[in-house]
Amino acid sequence: MPLWNGRFRTRLDPVALEFSSSLAVDQRLYREDIAGSIAHAAMLATCRIISLKESLRIQKALKQILREIESGKFLLKSAPSRNGRFVAEDVHMAIEQRLIKKIGSVGGKLHTGRSRNDQIALDERMYLRTCIGDLDALLRKFQSECLKKAEAHQSVIMPGYTHLQRAQPVLFAHHLLAHVSMLQRDRERFEDCLRRVNRSPLGAGALAGTSFKIDRRRTASALGFVGIIENSIDAVSDRDVQIEFLSACAITMMHLSRFAEELVLWSSHEWNFIEIGDAYTTGSSIMPQKKNPDMAELVRGKTGRVYGDLLALLTVMKGLPLAYNRDLQEGKEPVFDAADTLQSCLEICAKMTRSIHVNRKRFESEPQADLLLATELADYLVRKGMPFRNAHAVVGRVVTECISKHLSLKELSLRSYQRHSKLFGKDLWRVISLEASIANKKSEGSTSHVEVRKALKKWKAFLR
Amino acid sequence: MPLWNGRFRTRLDPVALEFSSSLAVDQRLYREDIAGSIAHAAMLATCRIISLKESLRIQKALKQILREIESGKFLLKSAPSRNGRFVAEDVHMAIEQRLIKKIGSVGGKLHTGRSRNDQIALDERMYLRTCIGDLDALLRKFQSECLKKAEAHQSVIMPGYTHLQRAQPVLFAHHLLAHVSMLQRDRERFEDCLRRVNRSPLGAGALAGTSFKIDRRRTASALGFVGIIENSIDAVSDRDVQIEFLSACAITMMHLSRFAEELVLWSSHEWNFIEIGDAYTTGSSIMPQKKNPDMAELVRGKTGRVYGDLLALLTVMKGLPLAYNRDLQEGKEPVFDAADTLQSCLEICAKMTRSIHVNRKRFESEPQADLLLATELADYLVRKGMPFRNAHAVVGRVVTECISKHLSLKELSLRSYQRHSKLFGKDLWRVISLEASIANKKSEGSTSHVEVRKALKKWKAFLR
Amino acid sequence: MPLWNGRFRTRLDPVALEFSSSLAVDQRLYREDIAGSIAHAAMLATCRIISLKESLRIQKALKQILREIESGKFLLKSAPSRNGRFVAEDVHMAIEQRLIKKIGSVGGKLHTGRSRNDQIALDERMYLRTCIGDLDALLRKFQSECLKKAEAHQSVIMPGYTHLQRAQPVLFAHHLLAHVSMLQRDRERFEDCLRRVNRSPLGAGALAGTSFKIDRRRTASALGFVGIIENSIDAVSDRDVQIEFLSACAITMMHLSRFAEELVLWSSHEWNFIEIGDAYTTGSSIMPQKKNPDMAELVRGKTGRVYGDLLALLTVMKGLPLAYNRDLQEGKEPVFDAADTLQSCLEICAKMTRSIHVNRKRFESEPQADLLLATELADYLVRKGMPFRNAHAVVGRVVTECISKHLSLKELSLRSYQRHSKLFGKDLWRVISLEASIANKKSEGSTSHVEVRKALKKWKAFLR
Amino acid sequence: MPLWNGRFRTRLDPVALEFSSSLAVDQRLYREDIAGSIAHAAMLATCRIISLKESLRIQKALKQILREIESGKFLLKSAPSRNGRFVAEDVHMAIEQRLIKKIGSVGGKLHTGRSRNDQIALDERMYLRTCIGDLDALLRKFQSECLKKAEAHQSVIMPGYTHLQRAQPVLFAHHLLAHVSMLQRDRERFEDCLRRVNRSPLGAGALAGTSFKIDRRRTASALGFVGIIENSIDAVSDRDVQIEFLSACAITMMHLSRFAEELVLWSSHEWNFIEIGDAYTTGSSIMPQKKNPDMAELVRGKTGRVYGDLLALLTVMKGLPLAYNRDLQEGKEPVFDAADTLQSCLEICAKMTRSIHVNRKRFESEPQADLLLATELADYLVRKGMPFRNAHAVVGRVVTECISKHLSLKELSLRSYQRHSKLFGKDLWRVISLEASIANKKSEGSTSHVEVRKALKKWKAFLR
Repeated sequence: MPLWNGRFRTRLDPVALEFSSSLAVDQRLYREDIAGSIAHAAMLATCRIISLKESLRIQKALKQILREIESGKFLLKSAPSRNGRFVAEDVHMAIEQRLIKKIGSVGGKLHTGRSRNDQIALDERMYLRTCIGDLDALLRKFQSECLKKAEAHQSVIMPGYTHLQRAQPVLFAHHLLAHVSMLQRDRERFEDCLRRVNRSPLGAGALAGTSFKIDRRRTASALGFVGIIENSIDAVSDRDVQIEFLSACAITMMHLSRFAEELVLWSSHEWNFIEIGDAYTTGSSIMPQKKNPDMAELVRGKTGRVYGDLLALLTVMKGLPLAYNRDLQEGKEPVFDAADTLQSCLEICAKMTRSIHVNRKRFESEPQADLLLATELADYLVRKGMPFRNAHAVVGRVVTECISKHLSLKELSLRSYQRHSKLFGKDLWRVISLEASIANKKSEGSTSHVEVRKALKKWKAFLR
Repeated sequence: MPLWNGRFRTRLDPVALEFSSSLAVDQRLYREDIAGSIAHAAMLATCRIISLKESLRIQKALKQILREIESGKFLLKSAPSRNGRFVAEDVHMAIEQRLIKKIGSVGGKLHTGRSRNDQIALDERMYLRTCIGDLDALLRKFQSECLKKAEAHQSVIMPGYTHLQRAQPVLFAHHLLAHVSMLQRDRERFEDCLRRVNRSPLGAGALAGTSFKIDRRRTASALGFVGIIENSIDAVSDRDVQIEFLSACAITMMHLSRFAEELVLWSSHEWNFIEIGDAYTTGSSIMPQKKNPDMAELVRGKTGRVYGDLLALLTVMKGLPLAYNRDLQEGKEPVFDAADTLQSCLEICAKMTRSIHVNRKRFESEPQADLLLATELADYLVRKGMPFRNAHAVVGRVVTECISKHLSLKELSLRSYQRHSKLFGKDLWRVISLEASIANKKSEGSTSHVEVRKALKKWKAFLR
Repeated sequence: MPLWNGRFRTRLDPVALEFSSSLAVDQRLYREDIAGSIAHAAMLATCRIISLKESLRIQKALKQILREIESGKFLLKSAPSRNGRFVAEDVHMAIEQRLIKKIGSVGGKLHTGRSRNDQIALDERMYLRTCIGDLDALLRKFQSECLKKAEAHQSVIMPGYTHLQRAQPVLFAHHLLAHVSMLQRDRERFEDCLRRVNRSPLGAGALAGTSFKIDRRRTASALGFVGIIENSIDAVSDRDVQIEFLSACAITMMHLSRFAEELVLWSSHEWNFIEIGDAYTTGSSIMPQKKNPDMAELVRGKTGRVYGDLLALLTVMKGLPLAYNRDLQEGKEPVFDAADTLQSCLEICAKMTRSIHVNRKRFESEPQADLLLATELADYLVRKGMPFRNAHAVVGRVVTECISKHLSLKELSLRSYQRHSKLFGKDLWRVISLEASIANKKSEGSTSHVEVRKALKKWKAFLR
Repeated sequence: MPLWNGRFRTRLDPVALEFSSSLAVDQRLYREDIAGSIAHAAMLATCRIISLKESLRIQKALKQILREIESGKFLLKSAPSRNGRFVAEDVHMAIEQRLIKKIGSVGGKLHTGRSRNDQIALDERMYLRTCIGDLDALLRKFQSECLKKAEAHQSVIMPGYTHLQRAQPVLFAHHLLAHVSMLQRDRERFEDCLRRVNRSPLGAGALAGTSFKIDRRRTASALGFVGIIENSIDAVSDRDVQIEFLSACAITMMHLSRFAEELVLWSSHEWNFIEIGDAYTTGSSIMPQKKNPDMAELVRGKTGRVYGDLLALLTVMKGLPLAYNRDLQEGKEPVFDAADTLQSCLEICAKMTRSIHVNRKRFESEPQADLLLATELADYLVRKGMPFRNAHAVVGRVVTECISKHLSLKELSLRSYQRHSKLFGKDLWRVISLEASIANKKSEGSTSHVEVRKALKKWKAFLR
């Protein structure tokens, strides 16, 4: 019989219990739940709401239950409900029932001045806090692998793309550091989220607070929170920090999907710019020659589920009146799923990045690679006094000539250049060089060797 | 060692295998997978691609494997990969490896003229087909429960709402039948989807078809399909029918969320129009007086996850080049989750509806219930020749007077009416009656007793 | 003053009017609104609810208003409200006020037995009906362009991809026909949706029907509907067909995004398989050599807004109690936006496809193109009696040797082959040919010339 | 002719230009675009890339163009392209062409060391910065109106709800302050987003930086940024801050939708707890008695479009390889739409809140209101030594008795109480009082008068 059964005549239909039980999902919160209960029990004694003896007995039993769960002795998923016939509704009830079974009615004192509404809000926040810490470490690890790969290939030049058309030569290291910068903002977003997560809702009761003189600051500080959520209705009603967390996860997955897309492109036959390690690729059940970038594809594909998780919780919360509604139960699974997905994707991305072999000379040895220097040529004319717009048009015509004649820029004669503009001179040849185009970049944060070395150094110090 | 491992030097990182294995998710397709393999093996013999003896041996072993799985003897979730060290990648490999283990290398002939790409497309379509059948039965059951409740309360009048403001009196049965109509369109959508689902992709191979002279129509018909997906690239690349299915699920959940919202509102203290059976409500862990409509709230909340499932697959498919990409693996879980969720919500809705107690007299006995007859009054004036727009304004003033004087329309004196318009006469009183307002409706599909009885009869015949 | 103002003391805050007016969005429904009103007015006379003379006067004035709008004489967007001081709330009020201004209070009779709730439901359905017709024509046109391009390049062989890795050779025409098949299912979905759209809600009134003896079948048939939405509450409360429409749009956009992705890839420097016509590409403001596939990128990008439109309406409808709520106003813009977006994307896709130049020999002239024949080799061994699984492994080793020695399959010696399996013989060379691999495909719907020609013929007849 | 037209033979198809032009959407960025160009021109002179004279001429002309736009003299939406025949592609080109038309080829020098890729990234960030400032002010205003309403009704007791069932009495002010707290976190999220937004991408060029020795810090500081986005590829490729902004908008809309839902419920006939001012409600076109909370419904409904905007941009960005892709153009409209929607919703919410009339005595005068004190009764027993779980069960039985006998808790006899538990004594009556239940709350952040007064004071100081 559920613990709230006082006024009910009929038992819950077993189908309804199964439909409504969250135990399969929230059992993973057992650590948070028990830690929260221990802090609550300790505080109840300090505030003389229960006796010290009672409190210690409760705390001791809770610690035993924790050990029982971790050793597999107490299987949460099949925790019977109070009368032993139903499965428990949720992790809170499963543990509380176990407690009462172990130490009798004194166990029933634990729930004094508390409600499941503030209890689940507490558990979820403790979970998110740990989870954000784990994600930060994984993000940092992935950044480090990108950084190492960038350092190891400092001199590799690759075509930079816009519109997936070759645009200008860039250092491969510079490209990788762009991803490192993006991931850094992801870390910042999780950190910002954490500030809002890290406040205790415990003591808000069902919604109104409690008539027991509890000390909310004491439990908050015992559980490592930096403060409390003050308004008791707010504390139990909102799930905005969960949505914010899911949004940070979704943005990170967006970033990972872009990285994954690049790995897929670069390891295609057509690009052939990298080879992903065998340990992170798979073959075909039918085509023996295949080496497929499955892990990258899965990372890209899993973006969908995290977007879905975000939308799910946004939908759940839309238009719900305050305070707690049972709909909120549906807020847990998207958070767990997104966190698990992101963690495994980050782990795989880090490992896969480390496994990448770069075909260093693939691009530089291409006949017409220097067509990417068209912008350099235009800048050359600008330096000779031609307005940029005109220079752009002149070089457009030069390029057209090269393409139609299957020539590289270097192969076109000076005379041909001068037919397009008299400003072209012999110093022209110094500009037409992939290496020079990198070296000549002057702006802060550009792809020049100087700037990229500066950035590598900065990130190395930061990620140390 | 995976079956595709010919050209690989390094084993898959176990982390990568776990990351990429779909077995935990797709093991539920074992029935479809085995049925498909049996049909394929039979066809291979008919087409003389393998011998009849080989085919029979394969088919027999597959049937044994099916029994092993169903009896729990062969646990798919821990199926080792070929070399016994890894977990299998997916349900197809797990079963094929088992087959080869049982009957040796002849088992390796099963995959002739087939690829996992057409195999999974087949399995998913067979699953969807069954699933749509189940959902249709559950939708029908829920319609039936609404219909029964409507029939049992044919004479109950309730306020119809627009903007959640009381609008006009309607029959409770009429309101329930609106839901029945909505659910009927949901059934139609699933039926339409089924026509597109019910075509076999088997024989498309990896993407190009096969050089074996297989007979695609034969396997299709053996497996109960109405035809084949002709173009082989199309057959393995698309998941549009899955998205269509998810969209039909999402729309149905939208309908259920509206029904659930009404149950929540109606069973609030303020409405007090219905009482949901004890077996479908729960209490509070702290507030002893509570009786909460948790099942309805959960149905409403679960709308979020199904919307999320739809978005997940839409996201997965966005921008994927043809043909198969591993991202498609992420298309299975949203389908399973949405199907499971919708099935359980429909089951609960049907049971919960049956449990509802209606407070028949709640509305009719209210003092000012007749304010909802304002539209009738306006129509009364229109029948006396006043244009509707003017009638509307006149009655607006009548109502304002009633509200400010705390009178019902019936309590206002004829003299007062006539101050607003000379067209009001003694026949006025016949109009001001909830019962008359229902009875006087004339349009097809209206809330009149005649029309509602007609509709009840129609649905009863239809849902028999 | 709005037409509903009878009981209000204060005017609507102008900020609130601007916030709530839908005129800017729904003015595009003026044709549908006027046609619906004319049919309603005609029916009111037939049913003797208003006189024939009144009806004709109303109809005539409505036709005048239509002309005024189309000629720009009556600007809906600035239609003043009744007292001339506010902007009208919506297209219905704007037109009705104009009517009353033109013909006086007889115009006020038009709204007899009707409500804005059934009126807007009617307008939206009429709009959707037209819109689905337009989209079908555009889808057909795009299919035709794909078909023409396929016919014009029947013999072009391209690498088929899975995981964006080269998998097996396929005919370019076969690949294009895969898209034609996908688009055909999109057309089917719109057609299915149309069956549900094409029923008239007119006559449902605000929610309960009406006490006037109107003839719903008459207006329905006059307006070209195949039937009516029977239940009056259902008729005004639901927007499921709009969501279904948005879902069909989203799935089509998913298909277009895949097509667009392929155009972007194929026109990259690395693929260089096609060139999109200059009229559908753009240059760079800074890099003179660029030719960017902007139209394809935009089609791919616009997928986002259509997914967003679908989610918007799903969100709006979640948890709304029956019947009409003002939230439904937010259902119009997503429908218009998705319809406009899809129409322009289809138009561009058709034109862009027609503009494509195919580099016919790009693939066939590649040295190692024949590595894609590995599956053929495996099938060769199977035909000699080796189980497929073993053949797959053998060929995997052959391919590994070729790759490491930079040889094509054709260049490897027979002796080398035989080191991998004694079953290899001289007939081997007949298998190693792109052309043969296409020609040898035997299964229905495969990429063989025979099957592709069959498909081209079928589609040509169908799309004639 | 577009400015990039050097290498093209054919003009853009007008249909393609219309399809791809973003001018209709991005013209609203003209202020940001011109300010950015002025800062860039000034820096070019300081860095001696162009002459001071040239720079001043450009700056002066840009200021003229700004005035021309603001005075309506230069209509951006119809800005012709360079050759006067096409509409400009975007706001950048429209302004640059105007510049060149005004001052000739020197105008062509403005684009030196710059690309549209960093230019649009700059404009969007400047827009977001302003927009976040505006939203913060509107959020603050809405908080203030809630606070004022709370202060004005400090003593009003209302039922607190969980599961939309009456749970415990709370102060109306406490409930409103829960919303104030939620909105405060929304403000924090926008502030956190602003830190990431407020960095300049200008000088990143197309993607690689530039060979001109520009000073990125100078333009950044001239435009009020706190720093620069260092990595040039990152600077032009990402739109994560836009998604973060949209996510903050979506969460805020989620909060508004909950507030709006409560207004709709509370102003229903059944609740009758508040009346929204006439200026923010509307009537019905057919039912004269209606007063509909349309503004609240629209706020709730508009949640859909903002969720849709968020999903749209997430979808656009999924799987895009670096750096700029034209898809990013689709990132502007969702941002503008969400910002506009949120601004108008906040404005309406503030005004609507101010207009609310509270029916102070509605709840307290209800006969059985004291059933909400069940938790107090349980706490009473706990204070007498009974474990909470047992107390909960006892009070459950008390409540059941009351409900079945239609008695309030106050009306049940002491003898009856004592039949349920001997611990009940005469001091019981002190507990059974709405007023006492509020007063007795002891926990921080509870609904007690003391705590609520403290909170009111805190917010008043904060929002001053």
